[in-house]
Amino acid sequence: MRYNRVTGAVVDELKTIVGPKNVFLDAEKLEAYSHDETNKEEYGHMPEVVVTPTTTQEIAAIVKLANRELIPITPRGAGSGLSGGAIPIYGGILLSVEKMNKVLDIDYGNMMITAEAGIVTNDINALIKEKGLFYAGYPMSVETCYLGGNIAENAGGGRAVKYGVTGRYVMAMELITPTGEVVQLGGKLTKDVTGYDLKQLIVGSEGTLGIVSHATIKLTGLPTAKSNLLVLFNTPKDAIDVVPVIMAKGTIPTSMEFMDRLSVQTCCEYLNESLPYQQAGAMLLLEFDGTNQDQVELAAEEVGDLCMENGAIEVYVADNYTTQERIWSVRRNIAEAFKVVSPIQSLEDIVVPIASIPDIIPELERISKQFDIKIPCYGHAGDGNLHATLVKNPTHSMEHWHEMMPIALRELYAVTKRLGGKISGEHGIGLKRKKYMLENMDPVELGLMQAIKRAWDPNNIMNPGKIFDLES
Amino acid sequence: MRYNRVTGAVVDELKTIVGPKNVFLDAEKLEAYSHDETNKEEYGHMPEVVVTPTTTQEIAAIVKLANRELIPITPRGAGSGLSGGAIPIYGGILLSVEKMNKVLDIDYGNMMITAEAGIVTNDINALIKEKGLFYAGYPMSVETCYLGGNIAENAGGGRAVKYGVTGRYVMAMELITPTGEVVQLGGKLTKDVTGYDLKQLIVGSEGTLGIVSHATIKLTGLPTAKSNLLVLFNTPKDAIDVVPVIMAKGTIPTSMEFMDRLSVQTCCEYLNESLPYQQAGAMLLLEFDGTNQDQVELAAEEVGDLCMENGAIEVYVADNYTTQERIWSVRRNIAEAFKVVSPIQSLEDIVVPIASIPDIIPELERISKQFDIKIPCYGHAGDGNLHATLVKNPTHSMEHWHEMMPIALRELYAVTKRLGGKISGEHGIGLKRKKYMLENMDPVELGLMQAIKRAWDPNNIMNPGKIFDLES
Repeated sequence: MRYNRVTGAVVDELKTIVGPKNVFLDAEKLEAYSHDETNKEEYGHMPEVVVTPTTTQEIAAIVKLANRELIPITPRGAGSGLSGGAIPIYGGILLSVEKMNKVLDIDYGNMMITAEAGIVTNDINALIKEKGLFYAGYPMSVETCYLGGNIAENAGGGRAVKYGVTGRYVMAMELITPTGEVVQLGGKLTKDVTGYDLKQLIVGSEGTLGIVSHATIKLTGLPTAKSNLLVLFNTPKDAIDVVPVIMAKGTIPTSMEFMDRLSVQTCCEYLNESLPYQQAGAMLLLEFDGTNQDQVELAAEEVGDLCMENGAIEVYVADNYTTQERIWSVRRNIAEAFKVVSPIQSLEDIVVPIASIPDIIPELERISKQFDIKIPCYGHAGDGNLHATLVKNPTHSMEHWHEMMPIALRELYAVTKRLGGKISGEHGIGLKRKKYMLENMDPVELGLMQAIKRAWDPNNIMNPGKIFDLES
Repeated sequence: MRYNRVTGAVVDELKTIVGPKNVFLDAEKLEAYSHDETNKEEYGHMPEVVVTPTTTQEIAAIVKLANRELIPITPRGAGSGLSGGAIPIYGGILLSVEKMNKVLDIDYGNMMITAEAGIVTNDINALIKEKGLFYAGYPMSVETCYLGGNIAENAGGGRAVKYGVTGRYVMAMELITPTGEVVQLGGKLTKDVTGYDLKQLIVGSEGTLGIVSHATIKLTGLPTAKSNLLVLFNTPKDAIDVVPVIMAKGTIPTSMEFMDRLSVQTCCEYLNESLPYQQAGAMLLLEFDGTNQDQVELAAEEVGDLCMENGAIEVYVADNYTTQERIWSVRRNIAEAFKVVSPIQSLEDIVVPIASIPDIIPELERISKQFDIKIPCYGHAGDGNLHATLVKNPTHSMEHWHEMMPIALRELYAVTKRLGGKISGEHGIGLKRKKYMLENMDPVELGLMQAIKRAWDPNNIMNPGKIFDLES
């Protein structure tokens, strides 16, 4: 890569575009934008300048400038990413959408909302709740992440078993292309075959094909009834074995989350919370929602019985908001808890076919023994998407960890591939998994992706070095 | 375009690849593959040779040959398309997947089926029904169309209100690229962010980005309970006005089909069927499905009441299979009936936001008056996808029709665009709507599509001249 530096003249031009108060050069600010939720020491990189545009036209002007001057540009949402997608690894311009957080339109007739990329995902639901509407997107970082980041990563999260992932809800978007053109993609349409579906190509492309300035997302009716089950099992295998049994039965839960004992225990201690984890080797957290409380509770009861018939040792029902929130808070905070108590770790995101989930558990145990490390495991069991996390053994040296970790990861990915899975279900490839994707992907598929990137971004200035490199 | 002709040497090579019995040169056979369900006189074009490969490797070898010799290649499913997508407008090789109709795998654990592109869509459901499984794809041509064609056009059809369109169900596919490489895309995974979602880019790309040899599609539980309502209204506007009211109410039907009187009458006469159309200016056909007959009938009853409160003049309930099939047969055969009684017509496929459907009806009436033609209208009202059909006035000359029709179509598309709609919801652009897409699409969006096509198909041999031209 040969990029140019951000010169004083470029900074002046940026100031003209967005105003001086939206251009940042001080070290503290640059440092804050040098990393995301991946390990800062390992993946962090300083941008040369941070800009916070407030309009589409400003973004387009910045991109045109970057393209003209051959300066890399890295778009950034809330920085809550888990694969280094928003890290400016070649320096250059860091473009944060944080000041573009307006709701542009709430369309009740079509049940859609149009909002800028910098809106916090949770704020969407807060806004529409009183109208009986609901956005089903629910990344675990829902309280901090932005809509733009959700689209860039095709975020999954806790409700995907029933509702699917972000992409299903993105109806339209405004995109600033890597050459600085502005284009509207999609529409408020449930069907559309007018040419290629570029909108869905952008979803999950991690900001490498352009910057989404605003998007229109589909809403559904607010589920007013809810019931949760916390189901205890003796072993992780017992818990996971029941997942395909439930999925095949027809009563699909909204969520089917898996947590092994180590995950629950670590998070309970972190939150000073008490869940009955002592007796259990693993748990499933099942949520059911709908519009009729009796029906929802009936569904929960049926699945609870099914769990008891298939190896569960106890089923707790949580049908009030406070208890539900307590349990979900434990689930949502596991990653944060591990970051605090075991900062040296690699949070993984493998996804396998639902019927193959039971096969992954003994493999995790094997890898854990082989490398003498703990691999706490939790995640979205109902999607086959598990956050097996490699945690450094405190008795090992850092050298040993750095040598061993890539080998252990390769083992994990090889098992995943053998079971028909992929290395990332929802966190994305970004910077962190780039070399592993290269090792695991058919070169023909990679070549097709690279061809699109080259065709749309001839100077490779839009979030370069993410997902794949172009030289390879 | 400068393409080479199919020489005797090329034919010999094709015979070596697929065997002589799978290479056709006789005029009768070529003629049969020269058109689809669009008007033959207007859009038909003879291929130079027809080949019917039986394996992926054969397709790849044919594509490599075509790419080397600069011969256009047109992939074809059942030929039931409505936009000329499978017509070999530059001659060359017509590649029919008709002999690739095997089921490769039924995976009950993951609830997915893998089948070759030439399988008839209906055959999938026939195969899995006894296992309590169901493929929700339901184009109106379900008894003849192929899975491969459904994927190429991202087929919609009658159940999309509840179940969505084809793309939601395509989990994986084998693709032969325009340069003859074979690649597996996707997996049996409900989540996957391992690079760009190329699979969804292929869905709806009308065979311009490669040939799908087989695909894995997601199944759902078979709905065992069903109820249908035939709701009569005085006017088309009355019928259409109630659609957004139903959609906003929360009880989403599986199907919400609209038929105006002319459509019902024409088809009833064609089928020698009797529906109570005399008294009604328009009808809605609503289907509800589920696993509990009482619940389904309750839902139908609620929506029936809602229709009566909102201008319906009569609600007929059809809760037995025979009556349901009679009504649906009328709906499915409207296009066929019009082809017989009014062969000079243009079957359209506009799609608008659901809340804007009521606004389209007076515009159709205006255009009908302005050009002194009938515009019977039917279609998937619950998706905003209406098959308004321009029918030649028998008192007009053919010259007049050919002069007037593009002007009337432009009026229709202008109205559609003004309402936030697009010119095709499910039939595709193909050959028929290419010039209109060009007129209605932002050049930036078109340029992004063309860039992908050029990057993947540098010799422009894969179904050239469909959706868009590359010279424009």
